[in-house]
Amino acid sequence: VNPDPIITFTTDFGLGSPYVAAMKGVILAVNPRARLLDLSHEIPPQDVRHAAFFLRSCIPFFPVGAIHVIVVDPGVGTDRALLYVEVAGRRLLAPDNGCWTELARGASRPPRVTCLSESRYWRNPVSPTFHGRDILAPVAAHLSLGEDPQKLGPIVQEWVRLDLPSPTLEAGRLIGEVIYVDHFGNLITNIPRAAYATLAAGPVRIMVGNQEVSWRVQTYGEAPPGALVALISSAELLEIAITGGNAAQRLAARVGTLVSIDKT
Amino acid sequence: VNPDPIITFTTDFGLGSPYVAAMKGVILAVNPRARLLDLSHEIPPQDVRHAAFFLRSCIPFFPVGAIHVIVVDPGVGTDRALLYVEVAGRRLLAPDNGCWTELARGASRPPRVTCLSESRYWRNPVSPTFHGRDILAPVAAHLSLGEDPQKLGPIVQEWVRLDLPSPTLEAGRLIGEVIYVDHFGNLITNIPRAAYATLAAGPVRIMVGNQEVSWRVQTYGEAPPGALVALISSAELLEIAITGGNAAQRLAARVGTLVSIDKT
Amino acid sequence: VNPDPIITFTTDFGLGSPYVAAMKGVILAVNPRARLLDLSHEIPPQDVRHAAFFLRSCIPFFPVGAIHVIVVDPGVGTDRALLYVEVAGRRLLAPDNGCWTELARGASRPPRVTCLSESRYWRNPVSPTFHGRDILAPVAAHLSLGEDPQKLGPIVQEWVRLDLPSPTLEAGRLIGEVIYVDHFGNLITNIPRAAYATLAAGPVRIMVGNQEVSWRVQTYGEAPPGALVALISSAELLEIAITGGNAAQRLAARVGTLVSIDKT
Repeated sequence: VNPDPIITFTTDFGLGSPYVAAMKGVILAVNPRARLLDLSHEIPPQDVRHAAFFLRSCIPFFPVGAIHVIVVDPGVGTDRALLYVEVAGRRLLAPDNGCWTELARGASRPPRVTCLSESRYWRNPVSPTFHGRDILAPVAAHLSLGEDPQKLGPIVQEWVRLDLPSPTLEAGRLIGEVIYVDHFGNLITNIPRAAYATLAAGPVRIMVGNQEVSWRVQTYGEAPPGALVALISSAELLEIAITGGNAAQRLAARVGTLVSIDKT
Repeated sequence: VNPDPIITFTTDFGLGSPYVAAMKGVILAVNPRARLLDLSHEIPPQDVRHAAFFLRSCIPFFPVGAIHVIVVDPGVGTDRALLYVEVAGRRLLAPDNGCWTELARGASRPPRVTCLSESRYWRNPVSPTFHGRDILAPVAAHLSLGEDPQKLGPIVQEWVRLDLPSPTLEAGRLIGEVIYVDHFGNLITNIPRAAYATLAAGPVRIMVGNQEVSWRVQTYGEAPPGALVALISSAELLEIAITGGNAAQRLAARVGTLVSIDKT
Repeated sequence: VNPDPIITFTTDFGLGSPYVAAMKGVILAVNPRARLLDLSHEIPPQDVRHAAFFLRSCIPFFPVGAIHVIVVDPGVGTDRALLYVEVAGRRLLAPDNGCWTELARGASRPPRVTCLSESRYWRNPVSPTFHGRDILAPVAAHLSLGEDPQKLGPIVQEWVRLDLPSPTLEAGRLIGEVIYVDHFGNLITNIPRAAYATLAAGPVRIMVGNQEVSWRVQTYGEAPPGALVALISSAELLEIAITGGNAAQRLAARVGTLVSIDKT
């Protein structure tokens, strides 16, 4: 017997929200066997860029076949499309705002993108302010029952792309930025392991804003408590942290703060 | 094969609480097949009115058969009763404080209410401060195993009712109030679609406190960013929002803030 | 048919964390039938003592067989061990920091502790900053598939112990301390029911800091709103609360605040 299908949720609704609970109810009413899994409901309100980093950091670990519902949707009720996407073996339902396009980077095949248009899979009537409940949730449930994605609407070739910012290299100086601050205050940058490793093979100066990073380590425990350290994060990106402390607070750093690496 | 039974949780324990985790353990110890689902643990402490709005907003979407455990219980350990309720096809376990009675509104049949008295379904001993763990959780687990609700205790005809406040209509002026503020700061009022639609067929003035609402829209995206808009929420109630912003903060509005509609 | 295996999570990652979501994905990729259950992701960052109280308060309620993954790991990437523990019939995977040792108190058998060393059950490569995702999660998944724990690594006889502080008794005066503050602001102390009951059989004075507790009750509802009360918590420990209020805020009390009981 196959395991029951998995449907995950990533939203900006907040954890106490009846909106999340309503989506769970809608799915179970269509497919009582669906196994529901919260990924996050704490995406900052309408922060598509944050959602993009979040999805890039966790979706690749899931088994092929899970259905991921993403509701971070500043354009709800406008003519922005809702999409069903197959990308790098993963299946997502999301508004067409680019939150998923980082997942396509490096994939062996282009994504297959369907624009949801077949309203027979939707709740009726559809609230103009809650497409998560009335369109994405029931479509996810029907997919989890084995419905053919081709029936959901037409394949499309155009969609909104959101590229996380790339670091720049000028005259031996690499300039990146913080793209995510985790719960511990660790600063995750957009500088990939390879770019860092190439430069940091020799002596370098690493700056976060106007603060110099004094330690280069493999893991937090290698430096004394309170040290400002640079290391490769579990997301394979350069991370700046304070051992046993909160780097975002101490450096007043946040998403967008510049991080530079100079050869010395 | 039937799907395994679903038991949901709605509490005011907060998400980091060992109390929630203990209830999950108790249920699984009785019925290892139960499928557990968090609805919210962020009901404000002991706020039965908030719980009532929350339940009204999500329970109707669930399939018949799911068992919903609600632990918002300012009266724990006093002689307030604990109830098993069948209402509008839904099954709930909750303290007798009215948190569920909005679900009975418009139901085709009266609710069937059982007062939990049969202690053989409870943990022993029962902590006087945690009936959620020691009474509601094991009773939910036994129900999920197919136990006959009639064995839990006697049917009762009296219970605490909690009616969410109703708007009033005087001389063409409709006066309602905010009954819920969501995570985005949107203000959900107690004015139903029909009452709003009747008045708002013509020109009206909508006030939130002493602030006039300038836009009437179907969805947020119809007005420019920062506009104060009135629309019908996904809960079929009048909602006041700021497009791309937080209305509760900008208007200093909260539960109880008056909202009026005047013909002009 | 046996129910599908349960794997629970207790972490300090915070609820919006992609780290939690990644662990869920890793487990499901190894065992698509695993039933995942969040206990808490709100353990204060790197607060092993808090985790110890949390686990003591909920793990004993779970059925034998559930696998509990704990990731509160200030020593990640150092040479601290990662353990698989069978204690009092429960199964845990955790860093060797003592977070689980309170569960051994009063158990009929000594714990059976395995040091995880067999890297063929791990993800490859292992990130030095995220052993939760790359070691604990896949090991949990393999255990849930029925893998023999003996294959994970050698049995060890030494591990870090963390004893929650014990109250002291001098000249008829019992001095304990607050070890947990719950979501309602209730203060849970380290004074067990028996020690309290012995002293409190006669007239006593109970002090929290320099504030006298005026009521001794069985449950909150016995005292008028706003009363400062002493009672036995659902964890079988002395608890100080304010009925309908927040004792931690009103008394400026927190973990470590002294609580004394004097015969009078």
